[in-house]
Amino acid sequence: MIKEIAQHRSVRKYHPDAVSEQDIREILEAGVRASTVGNMQLWSVVVTRDAEMKARLAPLHFNQPAAAVILTFCADVNRFSRWCEMRGAEPAYDNFCWFMNAVTDCLLASQNATLEAQARGLGICYLGTALYNAGEMAEILKLPAGVIPVMALSLGYPESVPPLTGRLPLKAVVHYETYSDYTPESLERIWAERESSEETHRLLEENGLPNLARIFTDRRYTAKDNVHFSKKYFEALKKQGFFNQ
Amino acid sequence: MIKEIAQHRSVRKYHPDAVSEQDIREILEAGVRASTVGNMQLWSVVVTRDAEMKARLAPLHFNQPAAAVILTFCADVNRFSRWCEMRGAEPAYDNFCWFMNAVTDCLLASQNATLEAQARGLGICYLGTALYNAGEMAEILKLPAGVIPVMALSLGYPESVPPLTGRLPLKAVVHYETYSDYTPESLERIWAERESSEETHRLLEENGLPNLARIFTDRRYTAKDNVHFSKKYFEALKKQGFFNQ
Repeated sequence: MIKEIAQHRSVRKYHPDAVSEQDIREILEAGVRASTVGNMQLWSVVVTRDAEMKARLAPLHFNQPAAAVILTFCADVNRFSRWCEMRGAEPAYDNFCWFMNAVTDCLLASQNATLEAQARGLGICYLGTALYNAGEMAEILKLPAGVIPVMALSLGYPESVPPLTGRLPLKAVVHYETYSDYTPESLERIWAERESSEETHRLLEENGLPNLARIFTDRRYTAKDNVHFSKKYFEALKKQGFFNQ
Repeated sequence: MIKEIAQHRSVRKYHPDAVSEQDIREILEAGVRASTVGNMQLWSVVVTRDAEMKARLAPLHFNQPAAAVILTFCADVNRFSRWCEMRGAEPAYDNFCWFMNAVTDCLLASQNATLEAQARGLGICYLGTALYNAGEMAEILKLPAGVIPVMALSLGYPESVPPLTGRLPLKAVVHYETYSDYTPESLERIWAERESSEETHRLLEENGLPNLARIFTDRRYTAKDNVHFSKKYFEALKKQGFFNQ
């Protein structure tokens, strides 16, 4: 397997060392090489290195560990639409299908950037908080209509390299020809290893909960938060002009 | 740059040779190694190799060139939710925020699979048609609630390796600290090379249109189609249970 894929882990402790301009450029150039819908390149990335800007973004990322650089990957139909208008063409990319196309461009680029960062001895962590607080980030980063944060990466030199994270067995995610829905038996099998792990036992003890599923539903991602962030992101999406249909 | 990233191109002509079971497994295992929100692995992939199933999917992918395998990458909160219920936990992942989290898992996994396929001498093409006809695909692939196609890949041995596709210069997609909106001057600069290319001249002649932007707005992705597919995908998303909020 490609080394950077096999060795991928999220880095949550960083050295304060700066990342060189050249590394940043080449990491983002790797993003540019990803497939893009119609070769329209419907994404942009905002590079945050300035200490004050990082401090403004930090609470929106729930103060996840500081890194030298934050890369905010955005779905972007603005650039393409402005070009169309300049050429007397009428763009109609301010709708949900093109939000999804732009999200796709954006995330494929981010994964290339992730792997290329690792190839250079750097570490990253995906910050899903970009979805939770996209509207506030749009204001801080001065994103115009047609641009919305989808994902952010922290980027820097790892202070320590954490162990690889376990995954469900491959067969848990793969279906042949048609989707085979899960049964209590198949769910028991695919979750067995993770549920019996030392980490799970530690988590249950810490949280006073009877099983791992409850850690997710009662602590990490509760119904109340999920609905709150769902409404918030959908509002931001409409405000940024991706739902005119 | 990582070789598979630097050499990435979409393959649109395939040898009919089958892809081995082992290659498919290892390509998808590369997908499994990608970052995933909360390590919840909110994606599934349906592998289509059966000739009759490929024939049923083909028109939904606008009869894009036949490949040995079609991989339909799906956002999937079903597996995780069924597990929660089995453990007496109450999942609340049937909303837009978790659709987006699942889309993220799904696309990061697909990009890893893409690169790993290339490392094995295989070629892929992203099929955005998965968004256009997601509802119909959900029926054919028997996807339950909580599962929706986000992207498909054709996968097979390339019959020929097309040239690398041009991209806008890096500075077109990168912003430092805040988003610098585009001006007529900057748009002229970033599009100059592509607009003056031989390929563009050929396209304009074939289509009888005055500029490249009009090829996109008048031919490839028209307002009518864009709005149609936007509504259609959003309906499919609701039908598959990703908008209870």
